Formats: sequence, C-alpha cells, structure tokens
Amino acid sequence: MVQYPMLSLEIMRSWVERHQSEWLEDYYAFLRFASISSEPESKPALLNCVEWLTDYVGRLDFQVETWQSKGHPILFASHKRAGPDQPTLLIYNHYDVQPVDPIEGWRSPPFEPVLRDGEIYARGAQDNKGQCFYVLQALKMWKECVGSLPINVKLCIEGEEEMGSPNLATLLAAKKEALQADYVAIVDLGLRQAAIPALTLGIRGIITLDVGLKGSETDLHSGSHGGIVVNPIHALVKLLAGLHDEKGKITIPDFYQEVEEVPLDKSLSLEFDCEEYRRRTGAVPEGGEREYSPLERAWLRPTLEINGISGGYSGAGFKTVIPAQAWAKISCRLVPHQQPERIAELVATYLKQQAPLGMTVSVEVHPGKGKAVRVNADARAVRSFGKAFQEVFDTPCECILEGASIPIVAELAEASGGETILLGLGLSTDHIHAPNEHFGLDRLKNGMLVIARALELLKN
Amino acid sequence: MVQYPMLSLEIMRSWVERHQSEWLEDYYAFLRFASISSEPESKPALLNCVEWLTDYVGRLDFQVETWQSKGHPILFASHKRAGPDQPTLLIYNHYDVQPVDPIEGWRSPPFEPVLRDGEIYARGAQDNKGQCFYVLQALKMWKECVGSLPINVKLCIEGEEEMGSPNLATLLAAKKEALQADYVAIVDLGLRQAAIPALTLGIRGIITLDVGLKGSETDLHSGSHGGIVVNPIHALVKLLAGLHDEKGKITIPDFYQEVEEVPLDKSLSLEFDCEEYRRRTGAVPEGGEREYSPLERAWLRPTLEINGISGGYSGAGFKTVIPAQAWAKISCRLVPHQQPERIAELVATYLKQQAPLGMTVSVEVHPGKGKAVRVNADARAVRSFGKAFQEVFDTPCECILEGASIPIVAELAEASGGETILLGLGLSTDHIHAPNEHFGLDRLKNGMLVIARALELLKN
Repeated sequence: MVQYPMLSLEIMRSWVERHQSEWLEDYYAFLRFASISSEPESKPALLNCVEWLTDYVGRLDFQVETWQSKGHPILFASHKRAGPDQPTLLIYNHYDVQPVDPIEGWRSPPFEPVLRDGEIYARGAQDNKGQCFYVLQALKMWKECVGSLPINVKLCIEGEEEMGSPNLATLLAAKKEALQADYVAIVDLGLRQAAIPALTLGIRGIITLDVGLKGSETDLHSGSHGGIVVNPIHALVKLLAGLHDEKGKITIPDFYQEVEEVPLDKSLSLEFDCEEYRRRTGAVPEGGEREYSPLERAWLRPTLEINGISGGYSGAGFKTVIPAQAWAKISCRLVPHQQPERIAELVATYLKQQAPLGMTVSVEVHPGKGKAVRVNADARAVRSFGKAFQEVFDTPCECILEGASIPIVAELAEASGGETILLGLGLSTDHIHAPNEHFGLDRLKNGMLVIARALELLKN
Repeated sequence: MVQYPMLSLEIMRSWVERHQSEWLEDYYAFLRFASISSEPESKPALLNCVEWLTDYVGRLDFQVETWQSKGHPILFASHKRAGPDQPTLLIYNHYDVQPVDPIEGWRSPPFEPVLRDGEIYARGAQDNKGQCFYVLQALKMWKECVGSLPINVKLCIEGEEEMGSPNLATLLAAKKEALQADYVAIVDLGLRQAAIPALTLGIRGIITLDVGLKGSETDLHSGSHGGIVVNPIHALVKLLAGLHDEKGKITIPDFYQEVEEVPLDKSLSLEFDCEEYRRRTGAVPEGGEREYSPLERAWLRPTLEINGISGGYSGAGFKTVIPAQAWAKISCRLVPHQQPERIAELVATYLKQQAPLGMTVSVEVHPGKGKAVRVNADARAVRSFGKAFQEVFDTPCECILEGASIPIVAELAEASGGETILLGLGLSTDHIHAPNEHFGLDRLKNGMLVIARALELLKN
C-alpha cells in the first residue's frame, strides 16, 4: 500500500510562500541581536537574544530550559509528544556570531539585516542564525499544518560556538540524560553549489593558540638601537616562516604522526574548478601541501594557519620603533586520530624550543579545542536526510567533507549517544566570519523544507 | 691680557637656580601641547604650540616669522644685533612629537608633565621640546643678564621632524637667503652617560616604506579555505624573514654597494658594556650583522628594521580568519654615500620581485628621507661647543656617533652654507618614541649653560 506523507512537499511549499513576510520579520529580529560571543560588551545582546529564542521556541510547544554556565547561556528544548515508539532527533545550532571587524568592509551595518538581490546581508545571516532559523520554521510548519511533530525533537542552541564551546563542553556530563537522542543533527554546514544538495561526511578538528615574543622591557628607538638588538618582529617572522617547509609541509616534529594517508573516498564529489575558485575568491588555490590536490588539502590534511599577527606601529604614517613585543595567533585544523591536546602541546613546545636568541616566548593555548568527526554514510538517519534533500532539490544528494570545525560535535555526539548527521545550506561565498556575510532567501526556504521533510522520513 | 667672559659660569648657574620655578612652569606649558605631527586630529595642538613659541621667542627680542607650508608651520626667528663682524649661528629644533601609543604603557598621562626623582615625564620631555627649551633659556639668560647676544642667532623650529620633515625640505630653496649662517647647530642629539659631555660626529640617514600583500578579495574562513589558499600572513613572514641572511646581513642585491668599510675612528669613544646595556633595556645586544661589534652596527652599518606588522585578527579571543591582506612597515638606516632614493628603489623593487605566489605586492615609500651626515671634528665651531661642554661638565668632551637620523640635516646644512654641529643632552634611557619619555632636570640646566657658554666662545 502506498504511504502518503503526512505533510506533502506541496503543502510545505505553500506554507513557506504564504508566511514569508511573517517569518522574514522574525528572522530579521533574530539577526538584529549583536550576539558576538567573544566580546564582553556584547553580553546584554547575547542575553536578549536567548530570551527572544526562549519565547520563540516555547510557542512551538517545546519545554524550554536555559542552561547557565560560566559563559553565555545555552537554550535546551524538547518536544516528546511523538512518544517512546518514535526516535529522538537532537538538533544543534548556535545563536552567537563572529566579531564584525573590519567594520569598514561592510556595505550595510552588520546588525541591520537588508535584502539585496535575493540575499539577506547581516552578521550571522548564515552562520548560524540563518541555519538555526530554518530549523525553527520547519518545526513551526509542522505545528501549524499538522498540530504536532512526527518524531521527538530536542534542540540545543548554544552561545559560544565561535569561541570553541568552552562551557557547553563542561556541561555535557551533567546534562547527559537530557541530551540522550538517537540522532544528532549539526545544522551548521554547507553545500558546494546552491542547486546541488549535499550531506557532509566529516569535519576537521581544531586547536588555537597565541604566541608572543618579548625582546626588551620597553619599545626602543630604531635609530639608536637598530643593529644592536634583535627586533622581536624579525624574530617572529623568522620563527613563523620556519613552521612550513618549501613543500608546504608543517615542520613541527611528530605533527603528522597520527595522520592516515587515506585517498579521497570514491563516493565523494571531487570536482574542484581552480579557475572558478579564483574568480569567486580572488585567491589562487596554491597554498598548503604541494603534493595534494586542493580538496585533499582542505578535507583530509591538517593545517597550521597564522590567523593574526601584530607588533610595532601600524597606524597612518610611520613610527621608528623596535617594539618590546610581537604576537601571532595560530590555529591548526586536525584530521581523524589527531588528539587536540597532544597537537597543542607539540606546537607550544616547538615554539618555545625555537625561541630565537634574546627572546622570551610565551604561548597560550585557548580552551575551545575539538576533534575531527567522521559520519557513517550508511546510517539510516544519514540516508533519511539525503532523501529529504533529494526530494526538495529534485537532484541526487552528493557527499562532501568540510575543512572547517565545530569543536563541540565529537563530544556532543558522545554524550547524546546518537548517530551524527552533518548538514546545512551554507555556501563558501556567504562571507561568513567576514564583512558582508549573507544567506540566500532560496536556501532559507529550502532549508525549511529539508528539515520538515526529514522529520517525517525519520519516523518509524 | 686675560680675556674675562662677558657672562661667567657662576652668574649663569646662579640665574638658572634663581629662575627655576619660572622656567619650569614655561617648560611644562610647552610640554602640554599634544603636538603629534603624524595625527591629523592633533592639528589644533600643533597650531597652539607654534603660537605659544612665537610669543615666547618674540619676547627674547627675535624677529619671528611663521613659515606656512602644506604641513605644520615652521617657526623661523633671527636676532642680528651682534652685527656683521660676528658669526651667525642657526639652531635647529622641532616642536612636534611622536604618537603616544601604546598609551597603556604610560605611568602618567603623556601631556601632563610630572617631576619624579629629578626627571620630568612627558611626551617630548626630551625629544625635542626639552632640548629646544634649554636653547631658549640660554638666549633668555643672555637677554636678562647682559641685554644682548654675543653673536647673531637664527632659530628654525619645525613641526614635522617626526614625519621626516617633508615640507621644510621643499621650503629650503625658497628660504635660502633667510637661512644663511656660518654654523648650523642641530640640538637633537645625546650623550652616552649623563656625566660625560659628548659631541656627535655623525648620524645615519633613513628611508621608510610600507609593504602590503593581498591574497584575496575578502577575508576567508580558515576552516573551509585553510590548506587551499596561500595565507597572506604566511607569505609576508616568509618574504620578511628572507630580508636578512643567517649572518644578519641584508639580502637585497646592491644594498651595501656604496657602503665603505671604515673602522671606527680612534678618537671615538668605543666602550660598550653588553651587560650594562642588557640591564638598562632588558634586551641582548645580539642583533644585526654578526661580524661587527654593537657600536659598529649602530654607527657605521646600515640596517633594515621592521617597525610594524599587522594582518588578520589581533583582539581578545580568536578569529579563524585568513585575511585578505597583511602589511609591514620597514625602515632602513643609511651610512655615508648611500643615496636615500636609490636605496628606497632597491628595497621596493626587491619586495615586488619576490612577490610570493598568488600575492599582489604594493609598496609605498614615505616622503621623509634623509642622507647620513658626518661632522668635521676639527672645525672651529665644533671645538667651541666642545670647550663649552668641557667647562660646564668639568670633564673632557668625548666624540661619538649616533645611529638615529634627522632627515633634514644634510639639506639644511647645504641650504644655509654653514658648518654642521650635532649636539644634545639626550640619553638612550630617556624612552623617546616610547611610553614614559623623560628628561633630567640636571641635563636641562646643563643644556642651558652649554648653549649660553658656546654663544660666547663662538664670538670673534
């Protein structure tokens, strides 16, 4: 006998179109909170944002809790009316966003969302408020069209993902019971092309650290002292330049020890158009380890990137100074089997060992570490989401990996006991973490449909 | 017949002590102007400062002119009453100061002078308001004790020295007549020890430039793009690290072409106590070219120093960004025979030639260039100042060189047609260009005496 869906794609599409002005207003309200987790002055915005979410999710018939921690609160919500015969899906999102600098790069203010050519521009428009928002609309659609959800759903929307989730990680043991789920969907990923659906089968891990070199007690005049002392900026550029060899390999001993040489899985979509990449970003895809292809480098290989460097004078004009200190911010992306703590220790030890003559080296490893994650492509839930994607896009769903990291995923999956699913509708052109972040109206709508459809496909 | 001085050291010392509270008040007023030449918002402070000076110098019976330019005005003043039989001494000082950052390093606000343990703390306390101020007091002393000056004196007090004197340089040809002098005293130098008088027989030249590397159109996420693109910070540290070889030599072709291998002059004071230097600055004197001694490196060898570096995120916490661009500020100190324009061209060309893969390199050479200067130790005026120093300090005057630069000196000396004298009472511990700049009350007083006494010794 043919099983007709409880909520057909036609009804879903109709609901999305009919309610557009309403949900767009709600989406903009969500985007207006300047919820930058790393900036202490944004605390009120973060609290207002979580309060807004608590109210919003509560109206979807969820039981909502706010988990307090040393950091920004975590919204946890559950809707168990589908009963014990149905599976439980835990969906993870975050309401915090990245800082906005360089602010002068924005065409419109980052917390005043605006629609231009089918794209909504705002900090967080995609990462992750946009992706969180289509999840909420999928739930709302079920409530309004059917009155209930086909399976049990739990939501975990945290406020410190952009800082590496330091406090959610420490709460996981205490909240293990609440977090129990059959599947954990991390809705913070992306597609390679807007028209081709994709499921992500893995993400990289991460560690971040600051390194500082101190050469003198105070800044020195570069005329009187130039040639006499070691300039901390010279020492820093030499130290950093030595972290990669001429083949682009990281020179830190044992850095690659746990890295397995695995060729790209044949089921993965491997196409990479260098010219298209160049047109899109303005950058040539010729970084990293020379012996690997661009996608191997981004998906299967670890990296060490300098994310910030500073020292001396960098204002207008000139200042003839030899600064007392110089600094850099370094992150490493990790692949399966690399342990974040061990890699952080290797990098920190190496930097200290290489201390250039006359320099005091200090290293501070940041909390937010995370392991790489791999998804089981054959798991039932993964196939259900793949089918939902295929139906909504009317195109076969491709399998990809992602070079970025969501530090909490490995630990969250472990605490919940569920199978991990990584998905999302981001594009690498969305300018996340950069000025003019944006998200497409078409993808926002498709996201609502995919999540709503997957809920039914996951039903027993 | 014994020639008694018109103004004895005893009378001078008595005048200095008697009027201390009065001149200290004037000195503090001079220091309170936040006359930072490189910061556009400081323009009013610069104008107020020059107005204050105009009034002050006018009351010393000088004819005062304010030379307007595209930049900050130049005070020019002359006092010709000694008549055509007496020589003319042109004294150069500057009323502009360096920026104050890092502001958090200051123990007291930089433009609120304060006396602690015999030292006056303020931006400009030494460089160059302090040194300008004791010149003015020497002139005031002659006016008040004798009623006139023993020789003809001209003053040139400019407002853009810390920017490399871009506008005074262009005015020199037009003002050649006014600037004519027999001797040009640049009162912006220092001593090696507070108790030992010194004349400076040479300073280094300078060029400064900014270099920028651009790798993409916008900042990129270091997760999705890390390993794919060339990170502009990586490219920059590699480029900069390559500018010196393992012996500390600058690698830019032909950089040393005009540099003569001259051993240090035997008349120079060559002592350099590495341990004392280390205690004083907290830095080890092991930078620059390994094959030369510290003083040879600071006095006789050119340098290339990175005075500032920036790129990516450098705030609190972390941002996983691959920045679109990264920058550095570079200065070179030059020795005799090196032409600033040629060296700037060599460095700029080399940086562009070395453009790392995927990077667009931009170089901007700043105006304020200057040649190295050497003083004729046997010139009559140099000997007169040496004698004045010896009498005031009751200690033989030593001869030194200085690694710092005063870009305008070579051109000013040429325009005036006079013999150059380089002097001053600064110490390398004065923290000029750094937080907590200070100048000793003892040196301020000795400066008044040395200048006042030299005026008489220069008399025919």
